[in-house]
Amino acid sequence: MPVPTIEWVGDVDGHIRLIEQTLLPERFDFIECTTPEEIWDAIKQLAVRGAPAIGCAGALGMILGIQNSTATNWDDFSAELAKTADYLASSRPTAVNLFWAIDRMKRVAEENKDLPIPDLQQRLLEEAIGVVEEDKKMCRAIGSHGAELVTDGTRILTHCNAGGLATADYGTALAVMFSAHEQGKKIAVYADETRPLLQGSRLTAWELMQAGIDVTLICDNMAGQVMKEGKIDMVVVGSDRIAANGDAANKIGTYSVSILAKEHGIPFYVAAPSSTFDLSIPDGTHIPIEERASEEITEGFGKRTAPEGVKTYSPAFDVTPHENIAAIITEKGVIERPDTQRIAALLGDGTP
Amino acid sequence: MPVPTIEWVGDVDGHIRLIEQTLLPERFDFIECTTPEEIWDAIKQLAVRGAPAIGCAGALGMILGIQNSTATNWDDFSAELAKTADYLASSRPTAVNLFWAIDRMKRVAEENKDLPIPDLQQRLLEEAIGVVEEDKKMCRAIGSHGAELVTDGTRILTHCNAGGLATADYGTALAVMFSAHEQGKKIAVYADETRPLLQGSRLTAWELMQAGIDVTLICDNMAGQVMKEGKIDMVVVGSDRIAANGDAANKIGTYSVSILAKEHGIPFYVAAPSSTFDLSIPDGTHIPIEERASEEITEGFGKRTAPEGVKTYSPAFDVTPHENIAAIITEKGVIERPDTQRIAALLGDGTP
Repeated sequence: MPVPTIEWVGDVDGHIRLIEQTLLPERFDFIECTTPEEIWDAIKQLAVRGAPAIGCAGALGMILGIQNSTATNWDDFSAELAKTADYLASSRPTAVNLFWAIDRMKRVAEENKDLPIPDLQQRLLEEAIGVVEEDKKMCRAIGSHGAELVTDGTRILTHCNAGGLATADYGTALAVMFSAHEQGKKIAVYADETRPLLQGSRLTAWELMQAGIDVTLICDNMAGQVMKEGKIDMVVVGSDRIAANGDAANKIGTYSVSILAKEHGIPFYVAAPSSTFDLSIPDGTHIPIEERASEEITEGFGKRTAPEGVKTYSPAFDVTPHENIAAIITEKGVIERPDTQRIAALLGDGTP
Repeated sequence: MPVPTIEWVGDVDGHIRLIEQTLLPERFDFIECTTPEEIWDAIKQLAVRGAPAIGCAGALGMILGIQNSTATNWDDFSAELAKTADYLASSRPTAVNLFWAIDRMKRVAEENKDLPIPDLQQRLLEEAIGVVEEDKKMCRAIGSHGAELVTDGTRILTHCNAGGLATADYGTALAVMFSAHEQGKKIAVYADETRPLLQGSRLTAWELMQAGIDVTLICDNMAGQVMKEGKIDMVVVGSDRIAANGDAANKIGTYSVSILAKEHGIPFYVAAPSSTFDLSIPDGTHIPIEERASEEITEGFGKRTAPEGVKTYSPAFDVTPHENIAAIITEKGVIERPDTQRIAALLGDGTP
């Protein structure tokens, strides 16, 4: 990415700057968030999206909630933190990275509760910026592990955007492609446009073109045909939340792609940092699936394309069962044929 | 349908009137075609679409090619007919009904070549109008046969538009739903929006709502999730061309839906008139798949939604292998587990 997807500008009294992704690829612009409400809206409206980037937004957003604190003791300060945490957590109920980042900030505050408030604020800012920096390192590591699975000439299908725009930069699924490309491997990528919000055409195609990678855009319903024509060697997608057994939630349509890949004997990979794992849930049935607004289907392009009053159903995510996943690519290594044992073996006790 | 999808207006010197489907559901309007070029454009631009309706357009279009004939003998007249036939056949290379209707017109002309030219023109007009009338009867028969497969409470998924708008009226796949609904069965339909041109949201949802049938619109990539949630009892789609063994070409994405249905143990039905069968080709590998314009993906809604210069791939159709099809519903009856023998058994020598 030419610029960071999301970053903190200034000192404790500073603010969040993030790329306004809903305007891409037509316009490249930023949003400056100075209040918890503004970052909440940015998350909700998908101006910032992608599990790791939302984690960064959550960590940095906690600073917005306490930067103007007038608390003079831990109890009052802690109450402000808790309020901000609950508020930010309500913006995207499926995104485990959001909860993970918020909890991490609360934990660090608790651990440093004896510090004077200004020092504690400073410590929390360092932690939040640390979340962003770690994300960058994690993406590089995911790319490096994933690129070992890619050979010269590999043709890859991806769904939605698990790119630099979904993380602090560089991406998860796209990190695999960026890394293979940087190693000089000639790859070709098919990008599902990913209705309703077209993250594939607006973001993934844009990122890959910027990187000079051969990309072909298709509609979601063309993936099966492209596979049947023998044009795909592997599928790589991101994930928003992975259960202890490897069941992986990701953008709606991912589950269907996994079935199509299975039908055509194509390996299906998930690339995600260890922070995406939620070892507190045994399998994907425990992952809540948020439903999105009808208008995204009926007038998602600024123009009404369905009859007035038509009923819609718009699950934002689906869960791909671990049986359909050839491997999960993490920053700690590749978990082949993921299941509860193999995941625990790589992640240890699960605290990333 | 409140008005015919396509009809002939007037005598031999008349013209074709058809519903301009690209404007639906926002505007309900007609196109009046007075030349072969105008009907060619209407077919190409999908103002009229759906295999049976295109067959009607082909038959009626032949009249536009010969209504002003100055030929005084069969050879000259026949040359005009052949020229019109070749021209019209080039508008949609996948649509076998188009070729079938055009060939039927040529055959009838040949059989009546001894008639004076004005009488021959009149005879051909009767034949073309007969194609339209037969289509209406066929749709009713398909609906009647198909409705026997539907019970009270059945939840049906469909893809694209095989409705009244795809035929002279009443439809093929939707005929099954209209007929079941008219029998008093309470059904619920999930309609794939069907990118890139959204025939599902623009046309199918509109037709079903007009008929008072419970319809829910989803994006194409949500079909797998809806099936997984146990919300679908059967899939019914149309077809543009069916090979001798039952392999069925239909709108892009249909093949994927058939795989998803198989994965979830949901029966997948194709509803199509016998004129859709092309017994001259043994299987689906012989069906040419036209590719459509990039702009339908990158700016299909009057607004650019993908980076400038992005490469696309846009097959208009795919072929569902007969193994994935529980039955083909025709006007002559239902062909269960379709294969070459069972299809030949119902269709006889294949000339509908």
